[in-house]
Amino acid sequence: MTDNNRPLDVVILAAGQGTRMKSALPKVLHPVAGRPMVAWAVKSARELGARNVVVVTGHGAEKVEAALADSGVTFARQDQQLGTGHAFLCGVDALGTQDADVLVLYGDTPLLRTETLQALIDDHRARGGAFTILSGELADATGYGRIIRSVDGTVERIVEQKDATEAERAVGEFNSGVYIMDSRAPELARLIGNDNKAGEYYLTDLLGLYRAQGAQASAFKLTDADEVLGANDRQGLADLEAILRRRINRAHMAAGVTLQAPDTTHIEDTVTLGRDVTVEPGVMLRGQTRVADGVTIGAYSIVTDSVLGEGAMIKPHSVLEGAEVGEGSDVGPFARLRPGTQLAQGVHIGNFVETKNARLDAGVKAGHLAYLGDVTIGAETNIGAGTIVANFDGVNKHQSTVGAGVFIGSNSTLIAPRVVGDAAFIAAGSAVHDNVPEGAMAVARGKQRTIEGWSRRYWGGVREKVQVKLPWLAGWLDRQG
Amino acid sequence: MTDNNRPLDVVILAAGQGTRMKSALPKVLHPVAGRPMVAWAVKSARELGARNVVVVTGHGAEKVEAALADSGVTFARQDQQLGTGHAFLCGVDALGTQDADVLVLYGDTPLLRTETLQALIDDHRARGGAFTILSGELADATGYGRIIRSVDGTVERIVEQKDATEAERAVGEFNSGVYIMDSRAPELARLIGNDNKAGEYYLTDLLGLYRAQGAQASAFKLTDADEVLGANDRQGLADLEAILRRRINRAHMAAGVTLQAPDTTHIEDTVTLGRDVTVEPGVMLRGQTRVADGVTIGAYSIVTDSVLGEGAMIKPHSVLEGAEVGEGSDVGPFARLRPGTQLAQGVHIGNFVETKNARLDAGVKAGHLAYLGDVTIGAETNIGAGTIVANFDGVNKHQSTVGAGVFIGSNSTLIAPRVVGDAAFIAAGSAVHDNVPEGAMAVARGKQRTIEGWSRRYWGGVREKVQVKLPWLAGWLDRQG
Amino acid sequence: MTDNNRPLDVVILAAGQGTRMKSALPKVLHPVAGRPMVAWAVKSARELGARNVVVVTGHGAEKVEAALADSGVTFARQDQQLGTGHAFLCGVDALGTQDADVLVLYGDTPLLRTETLQALIDDHRARGGAFTILSGELADATGYGRIIRSVDGTVERIVEQKDATEAERAVGEFNSGVYIMDSRAPELARLIGNDNKAGEYYLTDLLGLYRAQGAQASAFKLTDADEVLGANDRQGLADLEAILRRRINRAHMAAGVTLQAPDTTHIEDTVTLGRDVTVEPGVMLRGQTRVADGVTIGAYSIVTDSVLGEGAMIKPHSVLEGAEVGEGSDVGPFARLRPGTQLAQGVHIGNFVETKNARLDAGVKAGHLAYLGDVTIGAETNIGAGTIVANFDGVNKHQSTVGAGVFIGSNSTLIAPRVVGDAAFIAAGSAVHDNVPEGAMAVARGKQRTIEGWSRRYWGGVREKVQVKLPWLAGWLDRQG
Repeated sequence: MTDNNRPLDVVILAAGQGTRMKSALPKVLHPVAGRPMVAWAVKSARELGARNVVVVTGHGAEKVEAALADSGVTFARQDQQLGTGHAFLCGVDALGTQDADVLVLYGDTPLLRTETLQALIDDHRARGGAFTILSGELADATGYGRIIRSVDGTVERIVEQKDATEAERAVGEFNSGVYIMDSRAPELARLIGNDNKAGEYYLTDLLGLYRAQGAQASAFKLTDADEVLGANDRQGLADLEAILRRRINRAHMAAGVTLQAPDTTHIEDTVTLGRDVTVEPGVMLRGQTRVADGVTIGAYSIVTDSVLGEGAMIKPHSVLEGAEVGEGSDVGPFARLRPGTQLAQGVHIGNFVETKNARLDAGVKAGHLAYLGDVTIGAETNIGAGTIVANFDGVNKHQSTVGAGVFIGSNSTLIAPRVVGDAAFIAAGSAVHDNVPEGAMAVARGKQRTIEGWSRRYWGGVREKVQVKLPWLAGWLDRQG
Repeated sequence: MTDNNRPLDVVILAAGQGTRMKSALPKVLHPVAGRPMVAWAVKSARELGARNVVVVTGHGAEKVEAALADSGVTFARQDQQLGTGHAFLCGVDALGTQDADVLVLYGDTPLLRTETLQALIDDHRARGGAFTILSGELADATGYGRIIRSVDGTVERIVEQKDATEAERAVGEFNSGVYIMDSRAPELARLIGNDNKAGEYYLTDLLGLYRAQGAQASAFKLTDADEVLGANDRQGLADLEAILRRRINRAHMAAGVTLQAPDTTHIEDTVTLGRDVTVEPGVMLRGQTRVADGVTIGAYSIVTDSVLGEGAMIKPHSVLEGAEVGEGSDVGPFARLRPGTQLAQGVHIGNFVETKNARLDAGVKAGHLAYLGDVTIGAETNIGAGTIVANFDGVNKHQSTVGAGVFIGSNSTLIAPRVVGDAAFIAAGSAVHDNVPEGAMAVARGKQRTIEGWSRRYWGGVREKVQVKLPWLAGWLDRQG
Repeated sequence: MTDNNRPLDVVILAAGQGTRMKSALPKVLHPVAGRPMVAWAVKSARELGARNVVVVTGHGAEKVEAALADSGVTFARQDQQLGTGHAFLCGVDALGTQDADVLVLYGDTPLLRTETLQALIDDHRARGGAFTILSGELADATGYGRIIRSVDGTVERIVEQKDATEAERAVGEFNSGVYIMDSRAPELARLIGNDNKAGEYYLTDLLGLYRAQGAQASAFKLTDADEVLGANDRQGLADLEAILRRRINRAHMAAGVTLQAPDTTHIEDTVTLGRDVTVEPGVMLRGQTRVADGVTIGAYSIVTDSVLGEGAMIKPHSVLEGAEVGEGSDVGPFARLRPGTQLAQGVHIGNFVETKNARLDAGVKAGHLAYLGDVTIGAETNIGAGTIVANFDGVNKHQSTVGAGVFIGSNSTLIAPRVVGDAAFIAAGSAVHDNVPEGAMAVARGKQRTIEGWSRRYWGGVREKVQVKLPWLAGWLDRQG
């Protein structure tokens, strides 16, 4: 009996310690591709439209609950680690009315796709399923529980590695531990016993309890067994990271993105990339980054939570965070755009330039060694090399405004809060401490004094050192007599 | 009948759309290892000494023709995509006198070596060949057309995957699509029909047409089947890039170059490297770069169109383009040398330093945070930290000249056009707006005023913020009473 | 007869030329994971507690001896390359009293673990062994000498590839060339002849000489055959580097370190890492680097001989050498900490900042574009963007002292030697050439002059260029009439 409108509840088991992680962080909080492992399960549950999501916590419960505080899930504490059956029972006790299909997920299998889970649910419901296992197939499934099917194909039981006969060990179909069950699951879970060698409550016992009710158990087989890989140690974590990276990268390549060296390209799943984007080696794209068509991102650049407009060029070794880069702008190499940076179209940001809370209008150029913080700059203004907007007075950050078409000479300092009018001209080396009106020129530097013959005396006084370190200069001194 | 003096014409088929690239760029213009795929075929044709090279364009013809505009090839437009036989016919129609061997190449197989093609041609000519296929051998050649040989070893026909019997599918020898044919090819190509299911003109039909003339067809087998891999999508492009990278890297290693992490090393085939060059991880060497013996190139550095002298040391995270670095000079980390940079022997360029159109004589030191643009600097001159040559006045770039043995103090600005004589001394913090004669000292900064007791009033006025943010200072204020 | 107290002498054969390296450097000096190959063997010998260590040198002997000059080993020159037996004889002649077990190692097998050698020695001694070979097992041992055992398992002989029968070639157990022998070895080595096709003295002949004395030969089998891989060319060198990198990385991951992309992570074996350290992609950790718990090291950072305190955060693209970073300090991106840098707790070093011989007390902030050399800075001092400590006068480096709670305005220059008192305030753009007392304010910059209407004349004079390059400014000029 199919009922696609039955509600779906999800129980995520996330109480394990993960001793082999050797970490102060609970295992399920270790991140893969920028997101804690358990958050991948929560994300899937949300994408499946789950009504209730319960996360069962245990080891490091406070930390796990804090990490998921804003996710809207319910937490159930498993204070004693009495087995997966017990953990599940803790979880279902936190559900409200128990009238839903219940999906069991895990806090340490971040590769499991929502699409796969949806297919599992669809299969379960299409068959009017009672208890459906997500299974996988491996040439050698050593270590896993095996799915033992009867001649009609229904699942008879799951046999653990240690209890399996030789024939059973030859079975390649294994139990992933992910199940979807009808609404009897909470009630039947209470019947799981611990009368076994380890004295633990095993969630797999539910299968027998369902069958004892005359219900059929079945298994839905994964296409890609990698999806249910878990991480028990840091090597496992690195393996999951690599698999997920390849999966994300393949999808972008299929959609028309050039990755010059996909093995070294790190793109989080939250990032969107347009067509004909070129990503050079070693690039990292993170968070809510949006990249328009035709953008090039240079080698070893790191872009987080930023928006890159069509045809923008990010040159190598640039670090962007919380920045907007307008169409056709070029940035880097060695640029650092910090949060609140907004570059309009055709802006040029060169090497060793930092921006923060800086709005630069179309065509602004800041090519070399500058710090632009808390400032608005009008169109076509030229920021000389070495320019600093001195926005901080020790306790406050002040805002400055520079007009359009302004020329700021090299090594100048704008002492905020400062207003520089349109088309103003600031002489190189100026420390601008008064506002500059539109069309005016400001010079704020010392007058040059030149003292002839000075070097002969100066270097002559340290002639020995000069002879050792500066042979040319020693020769010059000699020639001076 | 061998005739090594027959001219060679080359037809490069480059009209395909490459839909799976999902790109606004025609497929054959997608670059592999820094060169559009079609340009690899053109390069091979040139290296083979081809008389005429015709590139058959179709999808994105204007872009392909623009990209190859300076290559000296002839273009033939295939306006309708009627099959490879038709494309070839478009190509041969653009040849002049048809008295040559004709080699067919493709715009999307950049891994095919010129040496391999030369061996194919040599074999063809040594045998007095009429129609010679470049074939390869795979354990499983599924998807490829198979080479069906008669008992005497000559080629009878090519059978496509879909038409092959089971026995034929077991054949591992496959058709690469590359052929060399005698001068009858243009004439015979006119006889290719389109009386088949797809209504297309197939170039493979030439084989039968040759044989119908009583000519023998043969196949010359590739050693490395990878050479004829094509790219149909971005994953394929990345795969070709990786194979080519490994091939180039292996050759450099065999010649005495240390690559510390070859999987992350990107060297274009235009680059030459001397003996005992050490390349650290993540380095990219591009364009017309020439590296002498004993040079070290630090991790993540990117060097384009530059010449590095013997024993030069490029430290990590440096970006060089169009620069010359003299013997024994050291550059970086975090240096940016731009076009027109010429460093003589033993020059030191340190971190956060940019040079452009800058000629630095032997022993010049610019160690920290400087911009040297449009300037000539004499031997042993010391450029202080934070020095800027202010070369731009808003519309023009001006040239400055600094002599030998000059000392430029930190945070100085040279306002171009400026001439600073030999052995001159510029005081730190100066904005030099007059020329400085040989041996003179220039100081161009404000005189210091010191106001005692000021901080007590200043910080006292914002005492609340100080208490929150600067505990030490709050304590100091308290002690001032 | 077991005697664990017998002394151990080690002979390291390091005389080979390594022609295929194509190098001016002797083969055994090529580094793997930061240490010359021969130094790995010396390190193992030391860790085994060897009494005498003799390194047999030949090709490039002077260079090898110079590289190992401080290692306390003895050198024996093999002036003529007459074979391994002769090389060994040169080595034992340099030993003193010949009463020890003698272990033979090689200068080009850096992957051999000390633990493996210790197990070999233990096995040899436990059995009262006379001649024990370190053997390995490969499915296909083509190219190696094979270990031929008698029915009782003792070793009968070693047969070289070229002399092996078909049955012998099927043997997978191979000779690594590493042997441990009892104290008869020096004496027996004299009996090795060169009556063979090549006219060489073969060290393997010792086996027969031992057996002729009635002694038993045995072989101790390696678990991991990779350990005895040697490098004959640069590809081999890169392969060893990769294997060693993986080995080191696996050990760190097992101990609780997260490596986000272990394939691109380079950690020398001299580095120690605490628990819950996170290492982003592309990081290099070298030399005597010590990293405390909870540290994060950002992508592409390179850290050499540095100490990172608990919870420190090194942001991407930072280069540290000989630096100490205090607990909870954050550094980078694009920071360069040079030798003599000492950061106390909670120090902030931002982008494009260089430090050298700089001691920064707790809470100091230097966020942008600064050079701090030869300076001590007190707690909570704020270093403005673009600040330079001008420590060099052309021949000497001078030391400056800045107090606690000081505010240094942007683009300031401290002309060393300078003393700035606690809580002093330096106005932005100042070139500080006098000391500043505690609590005082110093300003050392030019006064601002502002000339109204100047831009109209200036830009009007180059109106044509303005029209081409600066459309907005051209419009402004037009509007000025």
